[in-house]
Order: sequence, then C-alpha cells, then structure tokens
Amino acid sequence: MEKFSVRFLPYDISIDVEKGLTIAEAAQMAGVYVSNLCGGEGTCGKCRIQVISGHTETSRPLNAFFSKEETANGFMLACQTLVYGNLVVKIPEESRSEGAQILVTEANLDSGVSCLPLARKIGLELLPPSLEDNIADTERIYRELIKKIKCRSIDINPECLQDLSDKLRANDWKINITYSINKEHCQIQKIEPFEANSSWFGVAIDIGTTTVAAQLVDLYSGKVLGVEPAYNLQSAYGEDVISRIIYACKKNGLRLLNGAVVKTVNQLVKKLANDNRISVEDIDIMVASGNTTMSHLLLGISPRYIRMEPYVPAVCAYPRINARDIGIEISKTGILEILPSVSAYVGGDTVAGVMSCGIAEQSGIRALIDIGTNGEIAIGNSEWILTCSASAGPSFEGGGTRCGMRASKGAIERIMVSEGELRFTTIGNVKPRGICGSGLIDGIYELVKNGIVNANGKFNRDLNDSRLIFEDNVPHYVIACAEETEAGKPIVIAESDIDNLIKSKGAVFAAFKSLIDYVGLGFDDLEAIYVAGGFGNFLNIPKSISIGLLPDIPHQKIHFIGNSSLAGARMCLLSEASLEKCINISRSMTNIELSSYHPFMNEYIAALFLPHTDRRLFPSVEY
Amino acid sequence: MEKFSVRFLPYDISIDVEKGLTIAEAAQMAGVYVSNLCGGEGTCGKCRIQVISGHTETSRPLNAFFSKEETANGFMLACQTLVYGNLVVKIPEESRSEGAQILVTEANLDSGVSCLPLARKIGLELLPPSLEDNIADTERIYRELIKKIKCRSIDINPECLQDLSDKLRANDWKINITYSINKEHCQIQKIEPFEANSSWFGVAIDIGTTTVAAQLVDLYSGKVLGVEPAYNLQSAYGEDVISRIIYACKKNGLRLLNGAVVKTVNQLVKKLANDNRISVEDIDIMVASGNTTMSHLLLGISPRYIRMEPYVPAVCAYPRINARDIGIEISKTGILEILPSVSAYVGGDTVAGVMSCGIAEQSGIRALIDIGTNGEIAIGNSEWILTCSASAGPSFEGGGTRCGMRASKGAIERIMVSEGELRFTTIGNVKPRGICGSGLIDGIYELVKNGIVNANGKFNRDLNDSRLIFEDNVPHYVIACAEETEAGKPIVIAESDIDNLIKSKGAVFAAFKSLIDYVGLGFDDLEAIYVAGGFGNFLNIPKSISIGLLPDIPHQKIHFIGNSSLAGARMCLLSEASLEKCINISRSMTNIELSSYHPFMNEYIAALFLPHTDRRLFPSVEY
Repeated sequence: MEKFSVRFLPYDISIDVEKGLTIAEAAQMAGVYVSNLCGGEGTCGKCRIQVISGHTETSRPLNAFFSKEETANGFMLACQTLVYGNLVVKIPEESRSEGAQILVTEANLDSGVSCLPLARKIGLELLPPSLEDNIADTERIYRELIKKIKCRSIDINPECLQDLSDKLRANDWKINITYSINKEHCQIQKIEPFEANSSWFGVAIDIGTTTVAAQLVDLYSGKVLGVEPAYNLQSAYGEDVISRIIYACKKNGLRLLNGAVVKTVNQLVKKLANDNRISVEDIDIMVASGNTTMSHLLLGISPRYIRMEPYVPAVCAYPRINARDIGIEISKTGILEILPSVSAYVGGDTVAGVMSCGIAEQSGIRALIDIGTNGEIAIGNSEWILTCSASAGPSFEGGGTRCGMRASKGAIERIMVSEGELRFTTIGNVKPRGICGSGLIDGIYELVKNGIVNANGKFNRDLNDSRLIFEDNVPHYVIACAEETEAGKPIVIAESDIDNLIKSKGAVFAAFKSLIDYVGLGFDDLEAIYVAGGFGNFLNIPKSISIGLLPDIPHQKIHFIGNSSLAGARMCLLSEASLEKCINISRSMTNIELSSYHPFMNEYIAALFLPHTDRRLFPSVEY
Repeated sequence: MEKFSVRFLPYDISIDVEKGLTIAEAAQMAGVYVSNLCGGEGTCGKCRIQVISGHTETSRPLNAFFSKEETANGFMLACQTLVYGNLVVKIPEESRSEGAQILVTEANLDSGVSCLPLARKIGLELLPPSLEDNIADTERIYRELIKKIKCRSIDINPECLQDLSDKLRANDWKINITYSINKEHCQIQKIEPFEANSSWFGVAIDIGTTTVAAQLVDLYSGKVLGVEPAYNLQSAYGEDVISRIIYACKKNGLRLLNGAVVKTVNQLVKKLANDNRISVEDIDIMVASGNTTMSHLLLGISPRYIRMEPYVPAVCAYPRINARDIGIEISKTGILEILPSVSAYVGGDTVAGVMSCGIAEQSGIRALIDIGTNGEIAIGNSEWILTCSASAGPSFEGGGTRCGMRASKGAIERIMVSEGELRFTTIGNVKPRGICGSGLIDGIYELVKNGIVNANGKFNRDLNDSRLIFEDNVPHYVIACAEETEAGKPIVIAESDIDNLIKSKGAVFAAFKSLIDYVGLGFDDLEAIYVAGGFGNFLNIPKSISIGLLPDIPHQKIHFIGNSSLAGARMCLLSEASLEKCINISRSMTNIELSSYHPFMNEYIAALFLPHTDRRLFPSVEY
C-alpha cells in the first residue's frame, strides 16, 4: 500500500500513513488533536484544517463550512479529506484543544529547554590520550560529557565497558553516546561511532487489559514513525483484570501471564522495527503505561492483593529497570520506565491520560474518562484530583461480543440508519471483518432509536425486519450480510452483545456519577470532559450520550482524545518534565474505592438501561 | 581441629582460630595490627599484649620483657603466646600502630555515627493497610524506612517485588530489610521475616594477580568470621599482569580469564560460607580490591590498552553492579563494589592500602609499599600522594620458584642458620610442604650471610656443604630433606629461585628509589614505611633490608601490615566513609609511569645485587 507523509503544523509532527486515510485519522495516529464533535461525519464543521501543500481528495463538497477565500487557502475538514500525497497540514487555533493532547514538542519548542527525551544521544569528540593525559577511557568520556549535559553524577552501563576501548580507538575518539537520566543521575547506555544527525528511538506502549498499543518514536525529531495495536495475549487467561488476578494466583499462572504480555510487547516492537527498517537494538527506551494489574504482571509481580480488601498493590512507583531483565527485546542496555500507579484500580494509564490532557495544570474543573476493559474516571484541577475505577468488561474493545473486533482495518466503526436504510463504514474502507466499540455504540443507538431494541436492551421480537434473525430462538441483528463481508459470514449484533454493552456503559456511567456526586458537583460544573479509549479513530459523542455512556452535557464540552494513555506515555518518552508531572500527579491523586462506596451499586443498577432509568439525567436524548 | 574465639580490645573485634596458633597470627587473621619488628622471633619485645582472660601457653619464658607486675597482669608477647582457650586480649597503646590497619569499628565507635556498612539491615514494623490507608506495599515500606535512615531517594531491587506482598502478610507486617546506599540513593535489596539481632554478611576480597584472599564479615558485629586464600585460577594463563593482558587479547582469552577469576572468587565465597554454616544467599555485598588489570578482567573488560603507551585503562571508577550479573554467587540481589583504580598500573588494591594505613590523613610523609606480583609504592601525606608500580613477578607469593607455595599451612616461613645449623618453622607447625615468600627472603639472607651464595646470587660451588646438591650441574640448596617433608621430597632453594627473587626485589626497590628521588626526598625523610603483601603472618624486616628489598632506615619506622588491600576492602565493606575516602584518594593520587621514566631502568640494574651495587645505600647490612 502506498504511503504518504503528513506533517502537522504548528507542532511539526510527522507521520507516514496509507493513501486514502482521512487527515483526521492521520492526526489521530500521530497523536495530534483536532476538534471533532460529530464523530467524523462531516456535519459539525469543527475539524477545520488548512492544507498548506500536497494532494488531497475530498469525498464531498464542503462549501457550507468555508468562505471562498478559505477554500482558496486550502481550508478543509480533516474528517472528510483524504491523503493522496505528502502533505503539510496546519491545525488552526480554533481546531486545537486547550489541554487535550498538547504535544510535547510544541510545549518544548516554546520553552526552548525542556525537550529532553528520557534517552538522549549526543556526539562527542575526545582528545586522544597522551602520557601527560592518560586518564581512563570512561573518565575521558565523563570529562567531556559533563561539559555538555546537566547532571549530578555519571556512570556507565557495565555492558558498554567490554568493547569501549576498542570502539574509541577504532573511531578516532569520535563517538555518539546514548544516555538516560534518572533523578539527576546520568547513565551511559550505548557508545557508537560518531554520526551527525544520527537518530535514536523509543517506544511508547499502552498495556491495556484487552489491547496493547505501541508507538515507535524517533527521539531525535519527535516524529511518530508508526503505531501498532495487538490484542493482549493474556486475554486467553481471562478477559478482565479480576479474572487475570485470579489466574495469576494459580500455580504457574503468574509466569504464564507475564510471558504472555512480554510476548505481546515483543511482537509489537518487532513489527514496528521491521516496518521502519530499524533493529530492535536501536530502541533505547520504552515507556509503558497500564493499569496497576497490567503493570504488575509485566514485571512478573503477583497482583494477588489488588482484588482483596483493602485493595493494596505491591508497588505503585515502579523501579526503572533494564528492559532485557524482564525479557523485553529492545537494546541490550535499553531501559523500561513504567508510569506510576495511584492505587489498585487506578494505574499509570490514567495518570498518563490526566497528564496528557492537562487537567492538573488548570484551575477549571475537568474530567477524564478513560473507557477500556476498566473504566477510569478522574475529576479535578490544578489543586486536587479524585479518581475512581470500575470494571467495564472488554466490549468497548470488541471483546466478549459475537462479532466484536479491535478498532483496526476492516472494523465497522460507524453505523447509520436513515430512511429505513442501514449503512456502515469500516476502518480503511475495506470489506467489514467485525464491529469495534464505536461501531457497537452507533449500532445500538440506531437500534433503539428505530424501535428495534427496547430501552432495556431487548429486541422487539415481533418486528418485521429482514435483518432481525433468530438462531436457536436467540435474536441477532444483521449489520452486514454474508455477501458484504470479508469472511463471507454475516456480521451481527446479538442480544447478548447489547446486554454486555449496557453493563459496560452502566458501570462507566455509574462510576462517573458516583464520583461527581462524591465531590458535591454536577456534570454541568465540568468545564470539559475528555473521553479516552481504544475506539480507534473516533467516537460519536451524541450517540454515546444517547446510550447513556457519557453524561448529557453540551457536546462541545466533550472531547474525544483517543488513546490518552499512549499519548501520555509518548509525552514522557519525549520529555523528562512530562514524566516528572506524571510522578507528581500519581502522588497527588486521591482514589475512591467504588467497591466499598455504597452509592455506586445503586447507580450501577439505575444505569442498566438505555439511556438510564432516570430520564431526567438525559434531557436531550430524543428516544 | 578445635577452635577458640579471640576477642581483641579496644577494637572489640573477634575471630575464631585453631588451637595452638599464636595470638599474633590470630591478630593478623582478624586484621588487628600488633607491632612487630623481629618478625615474630620473640626478640624485639614489641608485640606486647595483655591477656585479660582465657587459657594460653607460651613456648618459652619471656621474663626479660616484663616486670613482675606486668606478668601478673597477663602481659605477654603476641608472637610467643599460643591460643589454648577462648581469649580476651587487649592491645596496649604502645603496641598499636598509629595509622596502620586502624580498624573501622574502632574509628566508628569513636565518632558514633559513621559505622555504616555498605549493606545494612534494619527491622521494620509496619501498620497493616486499611481502606483508609491502602497505599502500595512498597510505599508503606518506604514511608517507614525514610523515618529511620538518611537518604535522598529510595527504590527497590525488582527481584524483591515478586513475592513482597505475600512476605509482608505472612509475617504480620514485621520484616527485616537489607538495603544499600549509593550516592545518597537507597536501594532495598532484600526483605525477610523480622528477626531481632539478625546478622547479615559481606565479603571483602583482594584479587591479586597470583593470590586471591577473601574475608567473610558479619556486618552486624563487624566480626571477621573467616579468611580464605586461593591461587588465582588465571595463573594458568600467565604469571603476571602483562602476560594476562596478552592472553586476554587472544581469541576467547578475555572470556577464559574472566571465567577463571570468577570461579576463584566463587570457590572462596562458597568455602567461607560452608565453614561458617551460612548460605551464599546471606551474603549481601562484596567489596573487591585488585590491580587495574584484575579489576578489568573481573568485569570482563578488555585490558588491551593498559600495556600500550600511553597506558590507558578502560575504566578506573567501576560502576556498582549486581554481583550475579557477572556470575559472582552471592545473594541474588547482592551487589559488587570494586574499589577505584588510579591508572593502568595502580589499582584499587593500592588505593585500599593507602586508605587503610591512613597516609592520606596525616601531615608527615609516609610510604606504602605493597609487594605482590606487582610492587606498588605510594608516598605522600594529606596534601599529595604519588604512586608508581613495577612488575615484580610471582616469587614473593611462592610462584615461579621450584618449591614455592602460598603463605598457608605447611609453608616454611622462617629459616635461621646459627652455628652452622639450619632450622626452619612452618605455618601451623606441621611438616613442610614448600617455601613461601617470607621463607625465601629468610633463606636467601642466610645463604648470603653464611657465604653459601655470593652477592650476585650465585652459589659458591666449591663449598663443602652436604645441603648443596647438583642436578644436571644446577646447584640447589636443601632446606628440608626428604624425610622431614610432607611429600617425602626435599624442599630446596634453586639458583634460579634466587635469581628470580633478586629480579623481584630489585624491581620493587628500584621503583621505591625512583619515586623517592622523583619527589626530591631521601628514605630518611619518611616518618614511616608500611609494608604490605601476601607474606602470611610475618615478614622479617631486618632480613628484608639485608637482601635489599626494603630501604635501610631504622627498623622501628618500618611496619609490616599484612594484606592492606584486603584490610582496606574490609574497611569499605564496614563503612561508607571509608569507601568515600578511597574514592577521594583515587582521584587525588598522581601516578608516575616508570616505564617511561628513564632513571628507573638504571635503578633496576643497580638493584640486581644482594643487597645492592651501591653499598652506601645499605650501611647497616653486615655482609
């Protein structure tokens, strides 16, 4: 498949994407935020961008949104404009989010000093030794390095020492040094022949219960070279964190779970490296964010007590380790930084998300709602942040549903019914292979709206609809018929799928409602809600409200920001200051244990309805 | 063999020794310095000690040295008093050396704060978690630990995390924690069930080119539990550092040399652990001192450039590592600290020696001369220290000589000829197995003094002496005849042995002379000379002067201090402040490269004589 580079200004972030993707999709992949209210339907006109150069195609005329002058200047809607060449795209002020996914490179270009990736490379030219100056090779390096970087102390990974002397002499005392800094202590990780403008690489990785997503980042330019998702191979041992913990407590369970996630990570890293024609040895650092259980399992630590009252993890501030020590296959001396957790059920993924959308830096009260197998909520501002977490199950990530799949190529991500006609679109515009979380939300919304499914999630069995079929008296609704699909089998939404989704959205909404009640506020008091999750390229906000997943507040206050855990991990990879922020956030967050917070169960039961048993909470929902 | 404990006051250092050893030998093993001029012959009366309690035997009456009152109070000579029961022994002021082998525990008992071994154990009783206080297990430990110790930051060895949670709960939140501190950063190494007065252990190890010597130390009491020497298994690949470096540059050579020294170390550690009925897992730290080449080979680093002008080692400040990373079998999370080198030929052993005898803390100018396969000299005071090094070959350690052996049980360590009668004593008073370095010095002295060997080291072949025998026309002198020896074979000194020893002592003396000339001083300007080396229990100072090994200055200024490298390593093991001192000393020492210092070769040639071609340098020598 032909690929083109899209460069986003003013951030100067570039990404290579396949021909035919929308600019909105490219922005999503690059981690660049573009406003979006309608979920990519081309109706809200919020995703205005300016194409500075390059060839694009649009799927339909968008004159309604732009003046003639704007059109002449390349203004377009990101969600409706397809990449057909190498592009330079500017995101105008009005399409940027204040806090969400502010890119580190942007922040750092401004401040001019803080763009300090966790692993850095520097070129050094050393004076060759003489009888008058015959200090040891390492000391010669330190003497020169200390002139160029700020740190309290320096040492060297013992692995570097073996062939250090030969390398220095073979390269005429001109070398590139890769080093990392931890608490003002510098460790040299790698010594290579000098090469001007040589790149070095890092991987940001979000380790979700169901899905693991990794980004390969060029740490020299800040450019995201690729992003790759995979199902967590641990899924074979249980679909949610609780079942994983139970499995981990069985004989050999911990070893198997640890092995599964390490294998998942290694497969992603290898794929990213191969696709970008680099060696895994060139990857010097990995920053991982995950929920507390996932972080424990990655390190091979028993998560046993996470599920027992009083819900205590073994560790929240994970030690920085050599990635190879736990079998992660990056550079022999590469390091692994796992973002800190807050509590048993609020992990580094939430911390990364809160950091990435800037909640902790503003006085107004905002919320992050991260929807995955676990739903984590954080509410707060620069003074305080409260969090909670609820188990949502894997249905938002395409797990546990009959035709569910991850938000990847071939997933039905949008479903629309108009004038009795059902239409859908797939990621990559190929034949459908399944339905991802955002597709399922769309689908259920349409089914309810069109009277095919009741507010309690049951099919109206008497309906005369050729798409409503029964297998063993169990109703299914055909979204794509056999002839339309990749596999030649129909893609359906089963009643049990709806049931699962209701439980999932009910848990998330109940958690959100419990937390907002706990702090004595209403949803209307929130300046913004950032919605994160592995929904792929988009989440339809109005439909998400209509099914009762998100609270019914003005749509423009709700921003879908994609995988904020991954974005936060990448920000930390690219900036020591961001990691510092994460550490501070993890220490300042207060966690509310919903399992011992009694109102939660009532909220949950009340939320097992479409949209909710208390319709007053959803005044704008039409059906 | 029956063992007794000997406790030395005022240091409060104890050691268990075999019945029948002298108190001087026990002191040597415990690292406690007792004055000694005559080399243990009971003639100088300098090794006065006071036996406070316990059963001893003396080999002969020593009334000449003591008043009746002193005798009644238990005053004896350490070198003539044998251990026959558990003893408490006080070393009076006059028998202590000012700087030499000052014991860390002594220094620290005085200051009251600095007795901080590099690895420490502390008992903690934690509050069990509750819903109101459910921070992670590690954070709970840190919160309590930080109240008790001084450090800037804490983390935990990832190895500890795996079963941490279970351990805490199984032990009702009462635990012992072993931790180490490096540059104000604390790392938790081990978590165990709480036990009051629980011990933890360290190993100090001197890695010599020929001999490796290890001490097992109880880090709780500071008590030396055992000391064990072994030949460095690397010796199979060459007898001195140069031949080792050459071998290391061959294919597979570095791997073999590294494996050999690691194996040697592991054998010693295992023996010490077995003898003291502890597990190697109980050893939490090892401090190693060695010359620069040995330190490189221990870490598996190529020493290639050490022998090429301008003589640059790969590293002088060795990174602290996990001992298991290089195959050293102590605790899974045990650490290895290698004392810093100064230059290619002045290593951590010399730094440790200089630290242990306190040269760097006094205004008067003193010298350390460390005699091993390499001879290292350091001269200086609290303001400056100059060092140099010369290759001496293995003959002082019993290597490269026909009947040579290490100073261990069965080694002939003293040889006396009086009234035409040759007598000798062996270590342990058993049948002789060979001759160690101090025995060889004694023997050659006696041979020259009695006209059997000339000043150029050649036998007087015309002599009518039944002990002088010829094999293939090569002369040998029989020290112990076949019937007297363990193996039933005669123990001899061959002409080639004398030749080797002359070269060895010539190199050491020439280095010392070159250095003292370099600084524009004479030997008489030295306030003290500390002589270190693996000579076992004693070195006869007058005889060492007479053969031209040591300069001819008043005997009372020369102190034999045994293995000062090992003593320094043990001091560092027991005291962070001592390690800090070593680091400062290594940075402040100036090294003179003798191989490019022209006067050295002339000095060396002039010294290839007994005692020296320039007799004016040795006015007190009689023959």
